Amino acid sequence: MAAPDTGWMSSHLALVVLELVGIFVFAISGALTAIKKDFDAIGILILAEVTATGGGVIRDLIIGDTPPAAFRQVEVLLVPLIAAVVAFFAHPVVERLNFTVLLFDAAGLGLFCVTGTLKALDHGLGPVQSAALGVTTGVGGGLLRDVIARETPALVQVNTDLYAIPAMLGAAAVTVAHRLELPMSVAAPAAAAFVFAFRVVAMVRH
Amino acid sequence: MAAPDTGWMSSHLALVVLELVGIFVFAISGALTAIKKDFDAIGILILAEVTATGGGVIRDLIIGDTPPAAFRQVEVLLVPLIAAVVAFFAHPVVERLNFTVLLFDAAGLGLFCVTGTLKALDHGLGPVQSAALGVTTGVGGGLLRDVIARETPALVQVNTDLYAIPAMLGAAAVTVAHRLELPMSVAAPAAAAFVFAFRVVAMVRH
Amino acid sequence: MAAPDTGWMSSHLALVVLELVGIFVFAISGALTAIKKDFDAIGILILAEVTATGGGVIRDLIIGDTPPAAFRQVEVLLVPLIAAVVAFFAHPVVERLNFTVLLFDAAGLGLFCVTGTLKALDHGLGPVQSAALGVTTGVGGGLLRDVIARETPALVQVNTDLYAIPAMLGAAAVTVAHRLELPMSVAAPAAAAFVFAFRVVAMVRH
Repeated sequence: MAAPDTGWMSSHLALVVLELVGIFVFAISGALTAIKKDFDAIGILILAEVTATGGGVIRDLIIGDTPPAAFRQVEVLLVPLIAAVVAFFAHPVVERLNFTVLLFDAAGLGLFCVTGTLKALDHGLGPVQSAALGVTTGVGGGLLRDVIARETPALVQVNTDLYAIPAMLGAAAVTVAHRLELPMSVAAPAAAAFVFAFRVVAMVRH
Repeated sequence: MAAPDTGWMSSHLALVVLELVGIFVFAISGALTAIKKDFDAIGILILAEVTATGGGVIRDLIIGDTPPAAFRQVEVLLVPLIAAVVAFFAHPVVERLNFTVLLFDAAGLGLFCVTGTLKALDHGLGPVQSAALGVTTGVGGGLLRDVIARETPALVQVNTDLYAIPAMLGAAAVTVAHRLELPMSVAAPAAAAFVFAFRVVAMVRH
Repeated sequence: MAAPDTGWMSSHLALVVLELVGIFVFAISGALTAIKKDFDAIGILILAEVTATGGGVIRDLIIGDTPPAAFRQVEVLLVPLIAAVVAFFAHPVVERLNFTVLLFDAAGLGLFCVTGTLKALDHGLGPVQSAALGVTTGVGGGLLRDVIARETPALVQVNTDLYAIPAMLGAAAVTVAHRLELPMSVAAPAAAAFVFAFRVVAMVRH
């Protein structure tokens, strides 16, 4: 009847698009980890699925939004399948596999800490708690990937603060943008890009 | 009043019986892993409980059916206790402990990927998502067992595909049987037996 | 209108106070583990948060009380932050870090297995299931801490039974006190103190 709720619309649309991109890049990082560890085709698929959906499943369980998106929308399961196939055929051209895993992991971290924060705010959680859930969403999939692959979690590797700090800053930026009622279709991708850029600069300098 | 809903009845009864058998065999695999790692009596009990109930707890959390069966029905906690006692006294006669663990793990995998798929279908999830939840249920308990015991997860060991592929096929078979409205009291045990036989043949040939 | 429900009141107040103390001591054990593993400042904070909130988050997910307290009450996130700062500045004076970690872990185990059992009873779970959830709550945070830090879980270390047995006894004592309608503001701290004392005596004798 009245003016359409474009704030929510843009927030919601940003959430859906960023979520699928995040699922794709995290799936690539999971598949490349599996390739690095000499897993076979199915092992690559499983690690791609776990890495891509783990953070979101944890987030949805915590919010109480069950079944989680990964078990409701079939595309959330299919995107990692596509990513696994892409990684499987593309990896021979990738020379520095380790760095590439971290690059895609950084993109997933940025996207998921933003979408996790947004979803928590949408569900009425406070700003600190929303940021905490954003960080949890961002690091959850990669943590499961590293535990299953028996790697030292990226989360607690020597330069931890350059992993968690950008996630915390990105999540905090989203809560501030939400409070200031900035347009989320701009603020959310900007926050995700900031987290990614921060991580990449930190890795290159290291 | 009308004809009894025997389809649901048979599906439901099959679910309860297969579930308890799955809990028992997974508990045996957990207890034997603990014995192999020289855990003491309580360590054996804990690993039996975690392995037996882990997959089902994850499944119920994802579906949103809380508290999970393991925390609602006391028999789900008592069956692993019995299994732990059986494993404790029976294991000296078992020579090839490693193979026996994998044998019981294969039985649990078959039973749980079927019951997980059935429960997801009962809750109205789509066929792909139900099969995915079935596989998750099947591999969840064994994954927790291996992470806690600090073993390389059976899920991602060298011959991964011969672990996950039968689970995927079994889960898919259940969704097809459900779509074709085949009697579940026959189809469900058949699918579980198929997964078990596939795994055992793969292990023997390896 | 009638006499106030002091039984519930005392149980509830005991729950809140013991919960926050448990969060603090578990956070200290997490922070000290991170310091022992040479994690940096943020790594210390993250391990403090995970150890302190992990058991309670698992408990609340299982009970179906979402979002868990850690994502609803901001103090549940702030207490581990304070604990991390305290551990960071206090640890140089602590000579035997390993023992100190176990000491705080023992306190957290006692407090959380009591609060977990109480919360399960409050939600109408049976006595065996409530005790099982109490033990799960008590061991959950420490298990996550050890898995992330890639340590052998305290839960399954050589003297496992002297870890899990006091937790089981403490949880059982709470269910008995609940059945006998003893005042919980006395019984709950007493059960937590018993678990702590049992663990410490076991460690000193070992």
